[in-house]
Amino acid sequence: MARLVLKFGGTSVADIDRIRRVARHVKREVDAGHEVAVVVSAMSGKTNELVEWCRQASPMHDAREYDAVVASGELVTAGLLAITLQAMGINARSWAGWQIPIRTDGQHGAARIEAIDGAEIVRRFSEGQVAVIAGFQGLAPDNRVATLGRGGSDTSAVAVAAGLQADRCDIYTDVDGVYTTDPRIEPKARRMRKVAFEEMLEMASLGAKVLQVRSVELAMVHRVRLFVRSSFEDPDAPGMGDFLNPPGTLICDEDEIVEAQVVTGIAYSKDEAQISLRRVEDRPGVAAAIFAPLADSGVNVDMIVQNVSEDGTRTDMTFTVPAGDLGKANALLEKAKPEMRFELMQSEPGLTKVSVIGIGMRSHTGVAATAFKALANRGINIRAITTSEIKISILIDGEFTELAVRTLHSAYGLDKA
Amino acid sequence: MARLVLKFGGTSVADIDRIRRVARHVKREVDAGHEVAVVVSAMSGKTNELVEWCRQASPMHDAREYDAVVASGELVTAGLLAITLQAMGINARSWAGWQIPIRTDGQHGAARIEAIDGAEIVRRFSEGQVAVIAGFQGLAPDNRVATLGRGGSDTSAVAVAAGLQADRCDIYTDVDGVYTTDPRIEPKARRMRKVAFEEMLEMASLGAKVLQVRSVELAMVHRVRLFVRSSFEDPDAPGMGDFLNPPGTLICDEDEIVEAQVVTGIAYSKDEAQISLRRVEDRPGVAAAIFAPLADSGVNVDMIVQNVSEDGTRTDMTFTVPAGDLGKANALLEKAKPEMRFELMQSEPGLTKVSVIGIGMRSHTGVAATAFKALANRGINIRAITTSEIKISILIDGEFTELAVRTLHSAYGLDKA
Repeated sequence: MARLVLKFGGTSVADIDRIRRVARHVKREVDAGHEVAVVVSAMSGKTNELVEWCRQASPMHDAREYDAVVASGELVTAGLLAITLQAMGINARSWAGWQIPIRTDGQHGAARIEAIDGAEIVRRFSEGQVAVIAGFQGLAPDNRVATLGRGGSDTSAVAVAAGLQADRCDIYTDVDGVYTTDPRIEPKARRMRKVAFEEMLEMASLGAKVLQVRSVELAMVHRVRLFVRSSFEDPDAPGMGDFLNPPGTLICDEDEIVEAQVVTGIAYSKDEAQISLRRVEDRPGVAAAIFAPLADSGVNVDMIVQNVSEDGTRTDMTFTVPAGDLGKANALLEKAKPEMRFELMQSEPGLTKVSVIGIGMRSHTGVAATAFKALANRGINIRAITTSEIKISILIDGEFTELAVRTLHSAYGLDKA
Repeated sequence: MARLVLKFGGTSVADIDRIRRVARHVKREVDAGHEVAVVVSAMSGKTNELVEWCRQASPMHDAREYDAVVASGELVTAGLLAITLQAMGINARSWAGWQIPIRTDGQHGAARIEAIDGAEIVRRFSEGQVAVIAGFQGLAPDNRVATLGRGGSDTSAVAVAAGLQADRCDIYTDVDGVYTTDPRIEPKARRMRKVAFEEMLEMASLGAKVLQVRSVELAMVHRVRLFVRSSFEDPDAPGMGDFLNPPGTLICDEDEIVEAQVVTGIAYSKDEAQISLRRVEDRPGVAAAIFAPLADSGVNVDMIVQNVSEDGTRTDMTFTVPAGDLGKANALLEKAKPEMRFELMQSEPGLTKVSVIGIGMRSHTGVAATAFKALANRGINIRAITTSEIKISILIDGEFTELAVRTLHSAYGLDKA
């Protein structure tokens, strides 16, 4: 017997038929003898409708009122799932964030969970009751409802799992796991059985889009074992209830990954734009002078490459921004040119960042060289390179995206089962 | 300066444009210096949608979960109205029932309000804040949300007005007041300036349908002055903000009605069916034997007429039920015939009950005679009569409904301004 938190997103609870399928997933785990808490999102489209109404009421609105409006969507789903479970003979009840309570800070609209009192829910586990929890929300110190920001249901599920000391937090979504790369580009991509938190963080922020970055961070901090699986498969298909090895991908501490791969996956991010500032004065504070105005204007800078200057007076600085922000970034930098004292600005849209990710890199050499050689063999030009402990990111021209992903996927042997 | 509770129903808050008009009604009262609490329903159609989802999830559902789902509609409207008011420069905040709290009994799905702690709201009045309260809901003793049953927003508004000791509770609705009779039947019907609670109770249950019966009962018990007015008029039209004499109808204690009319209004209820049991054994318990099975089956019996029996052994019993329930009632009675020992059952659908209502009847004689004479002059046959202290109800054939209403309206001088 284990204690499980199951999380279902908006598309999984989009109508009553889908809520019934969700209930069958829950029933399978209950029948297997597990203690189960379920965290649900609003029916897909509902949150957007509520957000749009707030905007229509006033483009500038009180975040506390926005929260009062927007948090209602999850209450509906939680109640409907509880009703559906009861109709299947399962003892279930719904919980609003304020009832548990899930305590958050006062940051309305983008609150962070501070504490969850799981005592009452755990007590009811012993009576065989399933807890159905409205995701995405908690109680703020002012006794009002606070939402966790868009997509915050993943984060609440992880927080609930931490609060209840659950053995696993299963994130049911519209994909059936995390793949070695995007299967739309490389059909030989394989679903990974296990990924380390750190690897998942690199993949999520690079566009794997399976899980919110914040939920993975939280899971890593609280050592919550996250499991990504599909809500659209038949809940009663063979193996679905296999506790030790269900179909999907486990995101866990690296200690749990016995045979760590050197490289786990290849991620990519399209529509990047590169900006190069030539012969920037090489003095303390110059990087801050460049990036502070971009940050203030909400331009998300990604890769940053600065080389050591040859003579200690001038250097070149290259970085990437989303292609849609290029015009804005150029204008900001041009305006600040006198202060920054660079000679020339060059920019280039239509680029892609390809990343090689793997926790095993830490202890292996030659990982980067393999990538460079493989790309060179295909005639793919490398514009810039950045590396971290577990990631190598390479900036290339956009038209080579698919070729580069397939080349790297094969170069690290990820095609092989 | 007065303390006002304003209540807006579902059609008044059906979309953002209408919520803006509601906000203008609120602003008018705030600008006049009043302390204002607003009680809102869900956007029209939303509650039905939520109820339907509960039914689809399971026809037999836990009332506590139903409440969790259905109460969400009012939270949305309350937040949206608060945002709209703030955008107009008004200090406003929304309140869920559990935040105030509005304490109810544990009767989920049809809860009754037990206490309202208005202290915090009153404190905020002194800071100039408007309270926007989600109607139709409160907190049950089990710390879960309880709804007051369909249409319960009127009742919560009255309870809030009692809890805040408001000077008046304005019910904004899609009609502009209470009329002496149905204006669709009698164009000369006039809007009443004042109606006594008792009169309104008789009118509401007879189909005037302006206010819920329970909200009028509650207002009567707590002496809350209720004011019925239109939410669709221009909020800034002349006279709308007139505190002493705004356009609409005041429902109040009879002491406040200086020149009481003998008869205030003519109500009617169509689609009644009459059942007459002939030569029922005249012994104690016979009425209970007849009506208990009908009540158990949910058949709503209205008029009951039993005459004194001539010889003390047998009597005739006549009563009315909604025409739609006639078949069911007949079957139930036929089945119980051996026990009830009546000789013959006669029934007749397609009837109308016309009622003459007026608190002045108590102290005036000849009121009933006027009605009988007027109807006789028009050749309208009276099938049955029942009377109470302030009401005379007459059962007639349905085809005479309009003629009877107009005849009585004129007979009591209600046509005259």
